[in-house]
Amino acid sequence: MPYKAAVLTVSDRSARGIREDTAGPAVIERLKQAGWEVVRYKVVPDESPDIYATLVTWADLGMAHVILTVGGTGFGPRDITPEVTRRVIKREAPGLAEAMRRASLEKTPYAMLSRGVAGIRGHTLIVNLPGSPKAAVENLEVILPVLPHAVQLLLGERAAEDEHREMQQGMDVDVDVHEHTHNHHHDHHAHEETAEDAQDQD
Amino acid sequence: MPYKAAVLTVSDRSARGIREDTAGPAVIERLKQAGWEVVRYKVVPDESPDIYATLVTWADLGMAHVILTVGGTGFGPRDITPEVTRRVIKREAPGLAEAMRRASLEKTPYAMLSRGVAGIRGHTLIVNLPGSPKAAVENLEVILPVLPHAVQLLLGERAAEDEHREMQQGMDVDVDVHEHTHNHHHDHHAHEETAEDAQDQD
Amino acid sequence: MPYKAAVLTVSDRSARGIREDTAGPAVIERLKQAGWEVVRYKVVPDESPDIYATLVTWADLGMAHVILTVGGTGFGPRDITPEVTRRVIKREAPGLAEAMRRASLEKTPYAMLSRGVAGIRGHTLIVNLPGSPKAAVENLEVILPVLPHAVQLLLGERAAEDEHREMQQGMDVDVDVHEHTHNHHHDHHAHEETAEDAQDQD
Repeated sequence: MPYKAAVLTVSDRSARGIREDTAGPAVIERLKQAGWEVVRYKVVPDESPDIYATLVTWADLGMAHVILTVGGTGFGPRDITPEVTRRVIKREAPGLAEAMRRASLEKTPYAMLSRGVAGIRGHTLIVNLPGSPKAAVENLEVILPVLPHAVQLLLGERAAEDEHREMQQGMDVDVDVHEHTHNHHHDHHAHEETAEDAQDQD
Repeated sequence: MPYKAAVLTVSDRSARGIREDTAGPAVIERLKQAGWEVVRYKVVPDESPDIYATLVTWADLGMAHVILTVGGTGFGPRDITPEVTRRVIKREAPGLAEAMRRASLEKTPYAMLSRGVAGIRGHTLIVNLPGSPKAAVENLEVILPVLPHAVQLLLGERAAEDEHREMQQGMDVDVDVHEHTHNHHHDHHAHEETAEDAQDQD
Repeated sequence: MPYKAAVLTVSDRSARGIREDTAGPAVIERLKQAGWEVVRYKVVPDESPDIYATLVTWADLGMAHVILTVGGTGFGPRDITPEVTRRVIKREAPGLAEAMRRASLEKTPYAMLSRGVAGIRGHTLIVNLPGSPKAAVENLEVILPVLPHAVQLLLGERAAEDEHREMQQGMDVDVDVHEHTHNHHHDHHAHEETAEDAQDQD
């Protein structure tokens, strides 16, 4: 079973039909090549309520493991995708945005004007991509190799967490060939414990 | 018509006249070399109200396209420039601060102690530079090539946004030779639209 | 007199005694090798109140110059160390987290999933390290060379601030061989001044 992605293009002109959205479809194409199922695609203008409602709905209804926004991350007066995303996410994942900007910076100094953020809401990862088709796909390439593992961790799969620890330790593990069972309703509260369980070694 | 910059040195000792501010003038000198008009220069102590009032006033009165602060970004007990700046800006631009730290890190590991931030308030970009003259100018060098284009985008110039998209796409565009008209009162609401205009492709 | 560090391991399973904490001891061992005195070590589960109470108590009672947390920085449903740390710190130090992630990224792309933050509360620096022993020590290696100087600056030692300015200016200063007096109750308010002292050069 493939992982599920949703793509939200944020663009005044594409939303108005003045300019066809090419960046969103380019991102979708690349996701499909990588074996992802793209379950949602939508175009909204650079308006806070439109962006917010879509992200929250998609995340809270568990429609996709990963939501990629496309556009609205620059310095234009109406570019507000990162600000809305920050309000939607509960836990920021700054390493993804840093890695994308770092890779882009090797191609163009204008990459430092990208203001994209990434973070987690519930079991869904949300990542901002820039608005040009080429830059959006290039940024996606940077994070694509780690997305399957990120999703496994988000789903609270204990095996994934152990595997992650091993990978952090430098073992040569290829996540793509691993067998995984996807239990999206995995009860992560099973790991909860009371403070009394804590062995205070202070 | 050149772009306008303002420089705010944040230093207790320079504000008291104990140590002459050399970092601010070094930044001003470099800006002028690059063709910028420096319209304001001020020295304030590491006091939140002084820093806040200056940044907000300069930004909201549209005095400068870019405000550069110098100093107060370190680990000293009174270094609070980033915290005040975060309250002033409405939209963070983390890529600028990341790029400056990354470049500095190649010269000294102490660059990781720089806590500077960058962001946008209205049509003004505010960037924190470190307090030493050498480090301040070195950090400025990193962002100087993209500042003119950042200003064009901030002013909501549609041409700049199109150009930015092209540049993101890897076209070899030299921003410095472009003709631009600077209409600071450019009505970016002209791009507003209602939600009904949105072509929901969900 | 050596600088003081405290280590807080955040791990459900280690707190329950299911898995022995090896990452915390590995960090402690490395700190001792570098000449640090490790004054506190504790293991808590991934619970917000446990993490918060420990960090605030250790920082506000001045128990350590640097607190290192180990674990809880990933994408697992219960990984909340960065979120709790953000509420504890008063001034963020993003350069430390960026530098650690950047160094780790050269070893594994999974480093971009590390969500660790760093920042200052009072005179104490708090840094999140990842949960695997190997990654935790590798991350510590990145910041270890600048920690003594960071502490000096935090303590408000004027000499350290001057030295920092010189180091930023590219002088070849080796902080490790410097003589320092550690006055932890150094009155940084001695540097305070009124707004009237400010020489407004506007």
